[in-house]
Amino acid sequence: MNISIIGYILGQILRLQSLFLLLPSLTAAIYHEKSFISYITVAFSCFVLGTVITWKKPEEQVFYLKEGCVATALSWIVLSLSGAFPFVLTGEIPHFTDALFETVSGFTTTGSSILSNVEALSYSSLLWRSFTHWIGGMGVLVFLLAVIPMSGGSNINLMKAESPGPSVGKLVPKMRSTARILYLIYIGMSIIMFLLLLLGKMPVFDALATTFGTAGTGGFGIKNDSLAGYSPYIQWVTGIFMMLFGVNFNAYYFILFHDVRKAFKMEEVRWYFTIIVLSVFVIFTDLMQFYPNFGDALKDSFFQVASIITTTGFATADFNLWSATSKSTLVLLMFLGACAGSTGGGLKISRLIILVKTIFKELTSYTHPKSIVKIKMDDKPIEHEVVRSANVYFITYMIIFVVSVFCLTFENIDLISIFTAVAATFNNIGPGLEMVGPTANFGHFSDFSKYVMIFDMLAGRLELFPLLMLFHPELWKETIKRKLK
Amino acid sequence: MNISIIGYILGQILRLQSLFLLLPSLTAAIYHEKSFISYITVAFSCFVLGTVITWKKPEEQVFYLKEGCVATALSWIVLSLSGAFPFVLTGEIPHFTDALFETVSGFTTTGSSILSNVEALSYSSLLWRSFTHWIGGMGVLVFLLAVIPMSGGSNINLMKAESPGPSVGKLVPKMRSTARILYLIYIGMSIIMFLLLLLGKMPVFDALATTFGTAGTGGFGIKNDSLAGYSPYIQWVTGIFMMLFGVNFNAYYFILFHDVRKAFKMEEVRWYFTIIVLSVFVIFTDLMQFYPNFGDALKDSFFQVASIITTTGFATADFNLWSATSKSTLVLLMFLGACAGSTGGGLKISRLIILVKTIFKELTSYTHPKSIVKIKMDDKPIEHEVVRSANVYFITYMIIFVVSVFCLTFENIDLISIFTAVAATFNNIGPGLEMVGPTANFGHFSDFSKYVMIFDMLAGRLELFPLLMLFHPELWKETIKRKLK
Repeated sequence: MNISIIGYILGQILRLQSLFLLLPSLTAAIYHEKSFISYITVAFSCFVLGTVITWKKPEEQVFYLKEGCVATALSWIVLSLSGAFPFVLTGEIPHFTDALFETVSGFTTTGSSILSNVEALSYSSLLWRSFTHWIGGMGVLVFLLAVIPMSGGSNINLMKAESPGPSVGKLVPKMRSTARILYLIYIGMSIIMFLLLLLGKMPVFDALATTFGTAGTGGFGIKNDSLAGYSPYIQWVTGIFMMLFGVNFNAYYFILFHDVRKAFKMEEVRWYFTIIVLSVFVIFTDLMQFYPNFGDALKDSFFQVASIITTTGFATADFNLWSATSKSTLVLLMFLGACAGSTGGGLKISRLIILVKTIFKELTSYTHPKSIVKIKMDDKPIEHEVVRSANVYFITYMIIFVVSVFCLTFENIDLISIFTAVAATFNNIGPGLEMVGPTANFGHFSDFSKYVMIFDMLAGRLELFPLLMLFHPELWKETIKRKLK
Repeated sequence: MNISIIGYILGQILRLQSLFLLLPSLTAAIYHEKSFISYITVAFSCFVLGTVITWKKPEEQVFYLKEGCVATALSWIVLSLSGAFPFVLTGEIPHFTDALFETVSGFTTTGSSILSNVEALSYSSLLWRSFTHWIGGMGVLVFLLAVIPMSGGSNINLMKAESPGPSVGKLVPKMRSTARILYLIYIGMSIIMFLLLLLGKMPVFDALATTFGTAGTGGFGIKNDSLAGYSPYIQWVTGIFMMLFGVNFNAYYFILFHDVRKAFKMEEVRWYFTIIVLSVFVIFTDLMQFYPNFGDALKDSFFQVASIITTTGFATADFNLWSATSKSTLVLLMFLGACAGSTGGGLKISRLIILVKTIFKELTSYTHPKSIVKIKMDDKPIEHEVVRSANVYFITYMIIFVVSVFCLTFENIDLISIFTAVAATFNNIGPGLEMVGPTANFGHFSDFSKYVMIFDMLAGRLELFPLLMLFHPELWKETIKRKLK
């Protein structure tokens, strides 16, 4: 394994992190908060350390898939570790495990919090939490690709490791241009949302933090009741934008630069909207029994469906109090997740499509044992490799899920809390049910359980294998062997 | 599709059923119960109907996999429907859906009951419930193969559809001889267990019913407290035999006719025992905190682990009251299931092995993208087809599971009850947790939920695809087209 190039990337990541940390530093300066010193110190340290590491460009620039995976996994760990320090230094989250949990939850766009009272945080820390969502949503290495000239050729291996979904599509022949286009769409949509929120008379700070949380499908709120206290207009805008950020970004590319019809023909996007409509219908009819008002029932059911399917995790109502049917619809959506190529987490709609089609293919092979059926998506046959990897993904996903649930049972709390705590962190959603419901938090877990969930959040965001790679003995055996030579 | 051969098999199944029903009829006669008339009437009706149907042998004897699947699925449905009538006629389970649930639960070796007081049943009905376990354990079509001369050739397609596990092994070149050997081992082990129970001074009737329930890994008890009231000796004997009936029967074949070492080298069997030892260890250390007595803690932890992993479902303690760690260990075991080629249900250990090895293979493909790794079991490479079908099986399994959970949420009861009710029926176990715990029953569910679980029990026992086939439009379209020609 080419360790020097991985070190170089990690150095660049640290330099990027120092840049990111300027935003909360600036916020602290504007609001005259004493947290300024903490943020600027960490930013400066990251800059110095990163510059030292990247001083010498590595000679060997070969870069395979395994380097891409390892670099990605380590980058996210480095970002989370360095991003947690300000919380500890300001004393707002004094315990390091808690600070790390909160930061990982931020970068992975999970939005699960260990804080019982977020309103006690300084403005700078609130914005830093929300900003990590925005960074994590599109991916840091994609950002690196977009801005820093890297040795050409194997950039796709970095992007493959970080981008969600069963297959990475190049929009344009050059990977770097693809990364730039994606970031431009991302920034453009964020700005539109920000302006629409301002139009609804939301304070500038709140609008910025909410936009960050929505665009990254993160879900950290800046109020203890998440978005319940804002006007219906603001809730509708946020709901609709959550839904839009869950759409495969390729669809926006088609709309902007190509054929609009092509975007609407995308099978994944069509399934996505169908599932949203059906889920809203189920929950809406269920809520109508308890809500006095048609509009509120529609708003809350749509908002919660959009929030959960996109794995954002904002809340306008305490859905933990809803009926079993509504709750289990939401739990199903937790696992589903948004479209591939969006900022959302979960299994992804396109994987579901592949899995469902695999089952139909199997049944057909019983009636026509000799026929060769190819699974199709968007009217094109899917490569065998993509089908296989979707299957393996699902299996690995379930096994990690089950093992995590088991690890959390040592808490000796009710199984629904445990089950949904893992579902909420592993799928990068945020709140679960019962003891981790939308009005509760994750602070009561033991450190061991928190580290399990930190692992789950990272594994969920990086789509399992890049993180699992770090634990594969083969990788290290080989690297050590090469070093010893 | 060759409908006439399927009809012929169903007729034979009805004739077999009339034979099976003689046992409860005889029991009723011995105990002078008035249920005698009900049982003998149904037996006679089945015989007449079956004889009429099988009067003319079908001309076309071609028999492919799809005919095997459809015949198997329909056979099990016919057995369950006809087996439910006596319960209704005797008035002991007057509601037909309940009687059907109980019979399906019996034949599929699930052991979930809708009865709150089994001790109120007549001896004949108690024995009929337990006897259905014994029949269902090894499979009716395997029995058909063993005793009735069928048109040669494609017998394996019947056995494939009914036998559990990812691949059907022929022990000897002739399928019919394989079926006979399996039944001989099954009968032999049942007799040994029956004698050992009698040695422990268990009443003959109780010993017979318990043997039937254990051998088929069913779990219907004849007492309201399952096996809790019997002596530790009887509990140990039952526990050990549950474990033994969960072993791949090929191992016994090796022990009897071949090389004993070959049996102990079987990877699946070794995993099976390792998992049992580990689970007993976890629950035992957990129980030691509450139990005053070392022996009781060991007995109850071993008994419950053996009962759940083999999907039997007998209980010696109310494990619903145990800690979260013990409970979730048991829930994990629910999904695991016993070995392939045993009478147990669940996913099967060999599928787990394949799934785990698939993940490792995937990780290796990241480090060595060009290497071709074959997954091995028992030191032999597994065919790609088996791996693929294990993957598809798992996916289909999870999707049916999730949809079933969703259907049951209309009950508006707690999610743990719903979740474990599906787990317990789908994996053919019996009891779940909370409202379907070992001291509770399934009587409180709505008819709709009961039919969902009836589907789950049959799907679980027949390993999904034979039953799903019945709902595949392609199958019926083709059949109707052929008829119209």
